Amino acid sequence: MYQSKLFSKTRKEAPKDEVSKNAELLIKAGFINKEMAGVYSYLPLGLRVLNNINKIIREEMNRLGSQEVFLTSLQEKENWEKTNRWSDEVVDNWFKTKLKNETELGLAFTHEEALTSLMKNHVRSYKDLPFSAYQIQTKFRNEARAKSGIMRCREFLMKDMYSFSRDEKEHLVFYEKAKQAYVTVFKRVGLGEKTHLTFASGGSFCKYSHEFQTAADTGEDLIYYSAKNKIAINKEVLNAEVLGDLKLEQKDLQELKAVEVGNIFTLGIKFSEPLGLVYLDEAGEKKPVFMGSYGIGPGRVMGAVVESLADDKGIVWPVEIAPFKVHLIEIGTSEDVKKAAQDLYSELQKAEVEVLYDDRDLRPGEKFADSDLLGIPLRIIVSEKTLISGEYEIKERALGQVNMVKEIEVVNFVKKYK
Amino acid sequence: MYQSKLFSKTRKEAPKDEVSKNAELLIKAGFINKEMAGVYSYLPLGLRVLNNINKIIREEMNRLGSQEVFLTSLQEKENWEKTNRWSDEVVDNWFKTKLKNETELGLAFTHEEALTSLMKNHVRSYKDLPFSAYQIQTKFRNEARAKSGIMRCREFLMKDMYSFSRDEKEHLVFYEKAKQAYVTVFKRVGLGEKTHLTFASGGSFCKYSHEFQTAADTGEDLIYYSAKNKIAINKEVLNAEVLGDLKLEQKDLQELKAVEVGNIFTLGIKFSEPLGLVYLDEAGEKKPVFMGSYGIGPGRVMGAVVESLADDKGIVWPVEIAPFKVHLIEIGTSEDVKKAAQDLYSELQKAEVEVLYDDRDLRPGEKFADSDLLGIPLRIIVSEKTLISGEYEIKERALGQVNMVKEIEVVNFVKKYK
Repeated sequence: MYQSKLFSKTRKEAPKDEVSKNAELLIKAGFINKEMAGVYSYLPLGLRVLNNINKIIREEMNRLGSQEVFLTSLQEKENWEKTNRWSDEVVDNWFKTKLKNETELGLAFTHEEALTSLMKNHVRSYKDLPFSAYQIQTKFRNEARAKSGIMRCREFLMKDMYSFSRDEKEHLVFYEKAKQAYVTVFKRVGLGEKTHLTFASGGSFCKYSHEFQTAADTGEDLIYYSAKNKIAINKEVLNAEVLGDLKLEQKDLQELKAVEVGNIFTLGIKFSEPLGLVYLDEAGEKKPVFMGSYGIGPGRVMGAVVESLADDKGIVWPVEIAPFKVHLIEIGTSEDVKKAAQDLYSELQKAEVEVLYDDRDLRPGEKFADSDLLGIPLRIIVSEKTLISGEYEIKERALGQVNMVKEIEVVNFVKKYK
Repeated sequence: MYQSKLFSKTRKEAPKDEVSKNAELLIKAGFINKEMAGVYSYLPLGLRVLNNINKIIREEMNRLGSQEVFLTSLQEKENWEKTNRWSDEVVDNWFKTKLKNETELGLAFTHEEALTSLMKNHVRSYKDLPFSAYQIQTKFRNEARAKSGIMRCREFLMKDMYSFSRDEKEHLVFYEKAKQAYVTVFKRVGLGEKTHLTFASGGSFCKYSHEFQTAADTGEDLIYYSAKNKIAINKEVLNAEVLGDLKLEQKDLQELKAVEVGNIFTLGIKFSEPLGLVYLDEAGEKKPVFMGSYGIGPGRVMGAVVESLADDKGIVWPVEIAPFKVHLIEIGTSEDVKKAAQDLYSELQKAEVEVLYDDRDLRPGEKFADSDLLGIPLRIIVSEKTLISGEYEIKERALGQVNMVKEIEVVNFVKKYK
């Protein structure tokens, strides 16, 4: 894409009331717009990153055999009453609204009730089980404080998956696969090394749930990580019994601030029982379906990437979720430079490399500062100097490494870069 | 996909309160779920269709050079007050909600205010114009009556595009291109022949707006169509002056019930002026940006396809938006049939054809009835009979045409079918 055509512009300052590092950088770089505290719109560059994250999540959920759906935010109160979650005293982050006839509706903060209820039309017998369904859909949560940028929003996209099994045994087979899929997702988005499988409190149907916590100085959670065992414990469940369960020793644990980017949870029959989602087993007896839930916040992942990888010059995107792979920058206004840059742009496009081409008439310093802020993985400079040398300077945003690459090798270098 | 793995099931009856043909068929076929009147969730098959429509829309909007964004539904009242649209007396289909601190928020029924306001951070001079931005995003509209299935929802996806130009002249260049892109979209989704460019009332900045109206017996609109001139007039503007403008004669006009599937509108400075979206022209003078808006409801398109193409056996999907291209049906349970069907399934998958493979252990009559209801364009039957003959029966859902195709020709036949 030609940067001269991109409507979003970088800016020197984020709004004064913005206190989070992720939103400050993303607003300055023109990736998002702040509508109000905890409510952010995605501009073209931000949406490209979000879509790349969603694509990875979809691929991994589809690989699990999960089926994508798209539920509504408006929900009637009846289902929530059955699970005792309609009252504002039980759930304190409801957004509610009303139909013209004064009927109260809820804006779903989660979709266990809706999906469980819907499945009554589709599940009859044990032969219909197991299966899972997921969506990437908007959640509304009326947070009293929303000061963590796109990591804790009042309106945000969430990938929520729900599994439906006959019993705990069948459930656990899927649960394990989902856990592995989550590990793969966080590796692919570029957070693998900093994201730790974390034991957290379970519920009536299991001792533990599992969180995926990304280490970041600005994280709201505290976890205790064992580098030796590659697992962590959430502060809320750190006690002697849990240490014993997990065969961990207090002395091996490192306290880390972290951001919860995903969690998986055994629901058991918590929702299927009150909502009446049952199946006929092989003996013809009615049994409640055994469920699990599996969440990832794509926006929170994006925020966590910014928080944990950015440096003092700006954002640093991992290749697989970057808005573009290459930032092609022309320096100077001579016909030769323009033509060489345009040719290289065409060649990279032909090779199916995503390129942002800075064809703007600005000083080099401004272009480089913008480029650092935007955080695209590879920066290629085309100038009088590079034309004379016959080599292009390819700079890696993450580590600052500069590679001098012969003209004929550029496409190959870029294609291979990961 | 194996149909035995698909969680959604067909059903004999839609909910009793469902009065629209499109929702009735889509619910029976397991494409959507009714949460309440005017609020429908998308199940896997329905989401596949919706995504296919969205893909076509995106491709055509991107071809126009429009840049995709994703705005939020929660919006503060300030911007709406500036354009005098906050009051329930002015806009009668608001859904409103509240923050914890009692601040009132609106759930956006449209995004002119939000996007215009946001652009103040990105538009400075005439050099930043023209451009356009679009999104495919949820709208909330508190309809008093919502009886048209997925064609008039209280919560629905909408593609809304907004253009930003220096003046009317520059605006009209984009407006014409957008009009052509809309023609292409409706052709590609399979509604080309039934969708008519319709002149409707304009506003302060133009005499007419343009609607795209799809002829359907259940449509809520009345249009007057001239087959000779290939344009139509909305009933609300049918008068002698308009006939004269468009060089139409009353006697050539055919009255049609129709569904509005898209509309394009010159906004002029209606939003940029009150919201302060200005640019510096070449003389350094501040001018309000000249805007246009361009809407398509993907769900409404899907509903219109069902309404206008379904027959008494069920839904009929055009190839480009069908959930699958081929419905492969095995009849009988012999090993030979299972193997032949599985082989053909693999071969079609390899050829990148989307196939729903009915591997369920059901009577042929049930499979055929389901297949008719689902409306997948091509049905291929594998049975003892077809194995003996060495030919497969490929039936076209739309016209009922049966083709006997040699085994070796099947993939080719399917690939070519449009």
